[in-house]
Amino acid sequence: MNTSSTPAKLKLEVCLTPALIPLYTVQDYIVVIIDIFRATSSICYGIENGAEAIIPVALVEECAAYREKGTEYLLAAERDGKVVEGFDFGNSPFSYTAEKVSGKTVVLTTTNGTHALHLSRAAKKVVIGSFLNLTSLSNWLKQQQDNVLLVCAGWKNNFNIEDTVFAGAVVDQLAGDAYQLDDAAIAAGDMYQLGKSNIPAYLAKTSHSERLKKLKIEEDIAFCLQQDLTTAIPVLVGEKLVKL
Amino acid sequence: MNTSSTPAKLKLEVCLTPALIPLYTVQDYIVVIIDIFRATSSICYGIENGAEAIIPVALVEECAAYREKGTEYLLAAERDGKVVEGFDFGNSPFSYTAEKVSGKTVVLTTTNGTHALHLSRAAKKVVIGSFLNLTSLSNWLKQQQDNVLLVCAGWKNNFNIEDTVFAGAVVDQLAGDAYQLDDAAIAAGDMYQLGKSNIPAYLAKTSHSERLKKLKIEEDIAFCLQQDLTTAIPVLVGEKLVKL
Repeated sequence: MNTSSTPAKLKLEVCLTPALIPLYTVQDYIVVIIDIFRATSSICYGIENGAEAIIPVALVEECAAYREKGTEYLLAAERDGKVVEGFDFGNSPFSYTAEKVSGKTVVLTTTNGTHALHLSRAAKKVVIGSFLNLTSLSNWLKQQQDNVLLVCAGWKNNFNIEDTVFAGAVVDQLAGDAYQLDDAAIAAGDMYQLGKSNIPAYLAKTSHSERLKKLKIEEDIAFCLQQDLTTAIPVLVGEKLVKL
Repeated sequence: MNTSSTPAKLKLEVCLTPALIPLYTVQDYIVVIIDIFRATSSICYGIENGAEAIIPVALVEECAAYREKGTEYLLAAERDGKVVEGFDFGNSPFSYTAEKVSGKTVVLTTTNGTHALHLSRAAKKVVIGSFLNLTSLSNWLKQQQDNVLLVCAGWKNNFNIEDTVFAGAVVDQLAGDAYQLDDAAIAAGDMYQLGKSNIPAYLAKTSHSERLKKLKIEEDIAFCLQQDLTTAIPVLVGEKLVKL
């Protein structure tokens, strides 16, 4: 809500969980989907490494259905930290190297990320963000001169810290006179300021990080928190995420 | 979610907006309703000052209906910062002095607060929090040795900073080995730490504060941010809030 008496500014807002997406008129925004551990990090890395497209689906069964569509699909599905039998790999970003994904279409099973994408598809554009492409994404957003809604995929429709802190990192790069921030954007920016000197340490206290540790994917976590390893910006076209 | 391997702790969680209440099994918690500007502040002040009960309703029409029930009801309704014609007073905490409310039942129109209360009524207990009764409330919560869910009434079902910062103040008083915090409680606690040296200044940058300034109720805001002015804890019994 723009309440200032100066001319209307562009909106820079943060939707803290997919459950809150219906509160926004997504048609008015460029939407950035954020699912740091690990879907949007793996997507950014895969598109950077030459994957022709990445198709996010919610269920292992939907993923498996692509097997019949042809051998050009790589199927990624994991449960409890292990690759599901019959699938090509799991959700680790280390599976998304050029050697493995270049020229391929990857079908990725991701519950929270797919949910957020599905609810946002009416937006002007839907793009994918992670610490890996932070600066490239932020620079592109600034160039668009449009309203930006940063959508945190969260955890089972609820808030999580890692997605919010990343939203705060984007707010930090974009914030300035051009944008009117909502309360969630202000709060996310503050959390990023608190954590930015050591993001891994700041996130180590979250419940999600604890859960991921049990899955023995600490290396994935460290990988997902690297800043500006990539420059590609994945964008949603139909059902597929492709390079912008 | 309790993910530690030590024995199960009590839960201390923050529900950032009423839209997220359905994600919780409220039956498992004592719920604290938080609507700092101004409903829960006025309620704490009114109960402290001897109001027999306060009945929160969502609509001005519901409030008006109490006029026919008898002269013992005081009706509080306001739109755009002005008392609605035919009502006894508005939503300012300054209307809830002992002189005005002692021995009376006040019917209070409050959209966000009533919504949060209604969705929480299946909880073990529903109590009311504000900076006015912060320490008294926190001490009582500690004594209960039970799960605590701090519900931010927010703004039109979305996040706001002032309710979250107050939730963080309760987290600050309760946090310790006894409780397992969720991500929202951790984040709220961090925001409180950022703002606690000067809460009014920290909240001055929020969108809601800007809106309230336009209503010329800066004095109400300052009043609502006073810590420990009261000790009464309002509790929901049926449709009424009464002194615990």
